[in-house]
Amino acid sequence: MRATLIYGAGDVRVEDVPDPRLHEPTDAVVRVLRSCVCGSDLWPYGAKEDATEGDRIGHEFLGVVEEVGSEVSGLVGGDVVVAPFVWADNTCDFCTEGLQTSCRHGGQWGAPGVDGGQGEAVRVPQAQGTLVKLPVGEDSTLLPSLLTLSDVFPTGHHCAVTARVGPRTTVTVIGDGAVGLSAVLAAKRLGAERIILMGRHTDRTDLGREFGATDVVAERGAEGVEKVRELTDGDGTHAVLECVGLKPALETAFGVVRAGGVVSRVGAPQYSDVPMDGGLFMRNITLTGGVAPARAYIEELLPDILDGAVEPGRVFDRTVGLDEVPDGYRAMADRKALKVLIRP
Amino acid sequence: MRATLIYGAGDVRVEDVPDPRLHEPTDAVVRVLRSCVCGSDLWPYGAKEDATEGDRIGHEFLGVVEEVGSEVSGLVGGDVVVAPFVWADNTCDFCTEGLQTSCRHGGQWGAPGVDGGQGEAVRVPQAQGTLVKLPVGEDSTLLPSLLTLSDVFPTGHHCAVTARVGPRTTVTVIGDGAVGLSAVLAAKRLGAERIILMGRHTDRTDLGREFGATDVVAERGAEGVEKVRELTDGDGTHAVLECVGLKPALETAFGVVRAGGVVSRVGAPQYSDVPMDGGLFMRNITLTGGVAPARAYIEELLPDILDGAVEPGRVFDRTVGLDEVPDGYRAMADRKALKVLIRP
Repeated sequence: MRATLIYGAGDVRVEDVPDPRLHEPTDAVVRVLRSCVCGSDLWPYGAKEDATEGDRIGHEFLGVVEEVGSEVSGLVGGDVVVAPFVWADNTCDFCTEGLQTSCRHGGQWGAPGVDGGQGEAVRVPQAQGTLVKLPVGEDSTLLPSLLTLSDVFPTGHHCAVTARVGPRTTVTVIGDGAVGLSAVLAAKRLGAERIILMGRHTDRTDLGREFGATDVVAERGAEGVEKVRELTDGDGTHAVLECVGLKPALETAFGVVRAGGVVSRVGAPQYSDVPMDGGLFMRNITLTGGVAPARAYIEELLPDILDGAVEPGRVFDRTVGLDEVPDGYRAMADRKALKVLIRP
Repeated sequence: MRATLIYGAGDVRVEDVPDPRLHEPTDAVVRVLRSCVCGSDLWPYGAKEDATEGDRIGHEFLGVVEEVGSEVSGLVGGDVVVAPFVWADNTCDFCTEGLQTSCRHGGQWGAPGVDGGQGEAVRVPQAQGTLVKLPVGEDSTLLPSLLTLSDVFPTGHHCAVTARVGPRTTVTVIGDGAVGLSAVLAAKRLGAERIILMGRHTDRTDLGREFGATDVVAERGAEGVEKVRELTDGDGTHAVLECVGLKPALETAFGVVRAGGVVSRVGAPQYSDVPMDGGLFMRNITLTGGVAPARAYIEELLPDILDGAVEPGRVFDRTVGLDEVPDGYRAMADRKALKVLIRP
């Protein structure tokens, strides 16, 4: 089959790889209907050292079950399924607590010996725990929104949940990428009273407004902090959803959070030290978030997609075939596309 | 009257100062029955730059109301009261949310124009919001435990509450000072299943065991982390209560926290960067805590002291008169005393 590999910064290739087949009785093989490129794929795309062998890449996909191992129940060939962005048994103590990203028998797509999502098919380890059956056909118009259940929508939701967003919460969302916009949508869905979106790409912030943002702040850094404070009588907001992953974004987050408030970060951190000094201690600021256990949220979020209450798939603004995946990466890296959908 | 002033590192003096009197109709004057020295007083005691004028110091006291302003209701002369370690109106939005440390009309003891707690008497701003009446007499044997409601017991409690300690929670407490031991007591009171106390002063950790610690780890640094992990099948504990305030203690905290867990810090941070890298992000670790809104917790903690269910006053292992306060500081700085009680 054909699949995407990354060889180094800016060097993504679609190549022939072995067809996936069952290795373990807990495996399934899924033919991919839709995959996509993640903002976090852009970190290795921007900085990976060149290598002679490529690594498989892509961790978001939905598809059709082709074959299941002897220990997989509840799934049969022909089922349309979505996979969260890590695989997990969904039965260990961490999974039971809703932290499937720390599953004792789980792992990452694209790891050695494991397929990536940006290909024609995937061997799915721990298939029974990992895959969630979707009550739609292969030609459903909902596929883009359903694909966001792999990662980007649950990631925004995780950010909002860990930041304790609910009715009467004021929220700042930092970042107008697909995760930031998903965080806006999630905060709105959880009833947030006010959602200030910090971003400077008008086409994106316009979608953010449609997703529920009540205010948009285009300024960055100290000026952006000042603007958010002006909008909130000097106090800042109860919750700040940091959807970028860079240190300046985190500094902005600490600048706009209200005393007693929560900063949640879901942008993969490109820093190792958090600037959290005595001032933040005196203001009782909490820093939470982390890699989202998407699997924990799929059953909760799915009905709202099925009934059209939310349309998280609107973050996809370009669709490519598998052979055009390198173009898709380039478009996202150049900010010409918000998020690229792949139809293998 | 006599009161304590700090002039510089190692330079604490008891001197004559003006008698407190009502300035605002919201003030009260309280004659101090008991005060004490806080671990956080040792930071300026260790590092303050020399000055020609001293600063008033001390933020924990209980006493007898001598006089109240015209706008203070619910308090009369003769009432025995305890003061939390910041004063607050207890009616603003932050106070209503239980964050009296961010009160819109509050402030710190010992600030310019405000008395400190380590003296014979104190003018109490926002007296109605700040002071809590205690149903005991001036000669109650409970005074030491009731005095801990000013700071050290609610601080340990805040640490445990913000770290989400409850039944079935496993807890590591870092630090065997008075705050650490109070955190043990608070975690036990909240039903923690297991409490690992990290400390190396046997007399203190022995009291920690009496307060509820199920295990004591004397090792520090990587060795201490290893020990806690051994005790928890390699996982670490759900909650980590960081009661020191130094960066190595925080590093230890991140080393012993279980995936999905919470580190809460109540030791005044002597660092400005938190080492919170991508690994902690992948494990969904939360950092919370901060300066404790003691006022928010007094009504909840008081009954357990009155009925003897808890005895937080056992952290006091030395008592001095007001003129001996400099000796008390020295004893605490030299680790010859755990916490020093002052009887003016």
